[in-house]
Amino acid sequence: MSESETTAEQAAREQELTDRVIASFDHTRNPRLRYLLQTLVRYAHAYVREVRLTEEEWNAWIGFLTDVGRITTDWRQEFVLLSDVLGVSMQTIAVNNEAYNDATEATVLGPFFVNDAPFVELGDDIGGGAPGEPCWVEGSVRDTSGNPIPNARIEVWEADDEGLYDIQHDDGRVYGRAHLFSDVNGEYHFWALSPTPYPIPDDGPVGKLLDAVDRTPYRAPHLHFMVTADGYRTLVTHIFVRGDEHLATDSVFGVRDSLIKEFASHPGGDPTPDGRDLGDATWRDVRFDIVLAPRDFRTA
Amino acid sequence: MSESETTAEQAAREQELTDRVIASFDHTRNPRLRYLLQTLVRYAHAYVREVRLTEEEWNAWIGFLTDVGRITTDWRQEFVLLSDVLGVSMQTIAVNNEAYNDATEATVLGPFFVNDAPFVELGDDIGGGAPGEPCWVEGSVRDTSGNPIPNARIEVWEADDEGLYDIQHDDGRVYGRAHLFSDVNGEYHFWALSPTPYPIPDDGPVGKLLDAVDRTPYRAPHLHFMVTADGYRTLVTHIFVRGDEHLATDSVFGVRDSLIKEFASHPGGDPTPDGRDLGDATWRDVRFDIVLAPRDFRTA
Repeated sequence: MSESETTAEQAAREQELTDRVIASFDHTRNPRLRYLLQTLVRYAHAYVREVRLTEEEWNAWIGFLTDVGRITTDWRQEFVLLSDVLGVSMQTIAVNNEAYNDATEATVLGPFFVNDAPFVELGDDIGGGAPGEPCWVEGSVRDTSGNPIPNARIEVWEADDEGLYDIQHDDGRVYGRAHLFSDVNGEYHFWALSPTPYPIPDDGPVGKLLDAVDRTPYRAPHLHFMVTADGYRTLVTHIFVRGDEHLATDSVFGVRDSLIKEFASHPGGDPTPDGRDLGDATWRDVRFDIVLAPRDFRTA
Repeated sequence: MSESETTAEQAAREQELTDRVIASFDHTRNPRLRYLLQTLVRYAHAYVREVRLTEEEWNAWIGFLTDVGRITTDWRQEFVLLSDVLGVSMQTIAVNNEAYNDATEATVLGPFFVNDAPFVELGDDIGGGAPGEPCWVEGSVRDTSGNPIPNARIEVWEADDEGLYDIQHDDGRVYGRAHLFSDVNGEYHFWALSPTPYPIPDDGPVGKLLDAVDRTPYRAPHLHFMVTADGYRTLVTHIFVRGDEHLATDSVFGVRDSLIKEFASHPGGDPTPDGRDLGDATWRDVRFDIVLAPRDFRTA
């Protein structure tokens, strides 16, 4: 055979193998599982063929995944971290929260949400004594026609100024998280803490990967929201701090331009919106107007 | 926005995310690692977008990989099994053993090769007392011009007739494996056992996957070869038994048509090629002519 005939024979062998593997899933009882696996095989084989993966590189991948498995426990989910730093988690969120008019964009849930966070009244402080700079947060919840959505449930949670969530301490403390409800005009407001940057866990194989590719483990500072209301698509999102140095390098790709907000700084002594006396403390304020998509807009 | 504008906006958001993740690897110091990871991101994101992966399905994948990690130990490599049953291992072998004239095709190494298997003389029995039907194996080792390759090192290994390799027993026994050398004419022959089918380990998550997709864990019966000679590409392959019921459903996709051989059956008392007296035992014989590619044929 000539060189080109050898190459044609090689390509035929590789394609025949891919086809055979795909066909092996033909009898899968669940049609969605069959589709997911056959498509996975098609992509995985195309990858191996395109990059001409060496056996040494294949071994390195197996070793890496083995390390990811070894460090994973009920408390440390390195596979999720791996999905996060490859942007796969965020792409999954994007696919499942399709653009709809001016509905607020979604971003990743993260590992720090908990059910049953304390209820607070509008205007209360969700900080719960956590250390950090006070931050007044206000806004509205509306539909895509601009109508207010009263009584929407707003879950908020955030890290303290050391970059740690309450549940990362092992003393059972509860702070930096709460739920509240929008008022009859769809408005809400509360006191929180100015968000601070923190790294994702980087002492495992995913941290080594980030180091090898010269990426930071830091997340851009953010405040988490989950907003639910009857008849609307649940919104899981964050807001980010305009001008922060970590916006462009957020380690899990959670930042969307539309979610970057002005967190205005105020000197100590500046009067607060609700007349709260903060003494000499500096504080910030931010406005976040939330727009919810209808629950089933494809069929609406 | 109209429906089509929404769809265009959605596609733009998804593509922008993929582009941003790919760019995040731009500063990777090792150019090959950069290429491997950027291409991986491109494929992984294309997969999530094409199948419209739901968050529930993403969770199921994370849970599956976590289970694969949990069962993996120094002795049980479930990630390799996963790669095997998706045909990724075999595709990697194919990519790294390019077609070259009539050079013998490669297949997977498998987990049961060990270095330092016993040396045997031509004509000896590699069975070492393992239970099974005797099988005479003979053939030649040649280059792609038909010239004999003397003194090629031939490693052979196989399971016993219960489908177990020696190292799967925990008593340190050594049987069903050996190495020998081709003679001055490139010829070789030895006694082995007729190959029998056996399942890959199917008591873990990969076994559950095979069950969900209605696939058998069984490998088609085979005899392993690894052939090395100075100046030639090392060949790792098996030969398979023509007519066997498992050929079309080999769980790791190791079968190539060119590797299926006639294992002719002989009744008890039929004279053996070397005059060995097997009493009433049935036996088989098979011929496997091996052709080695030059080591660096691309640059030859």
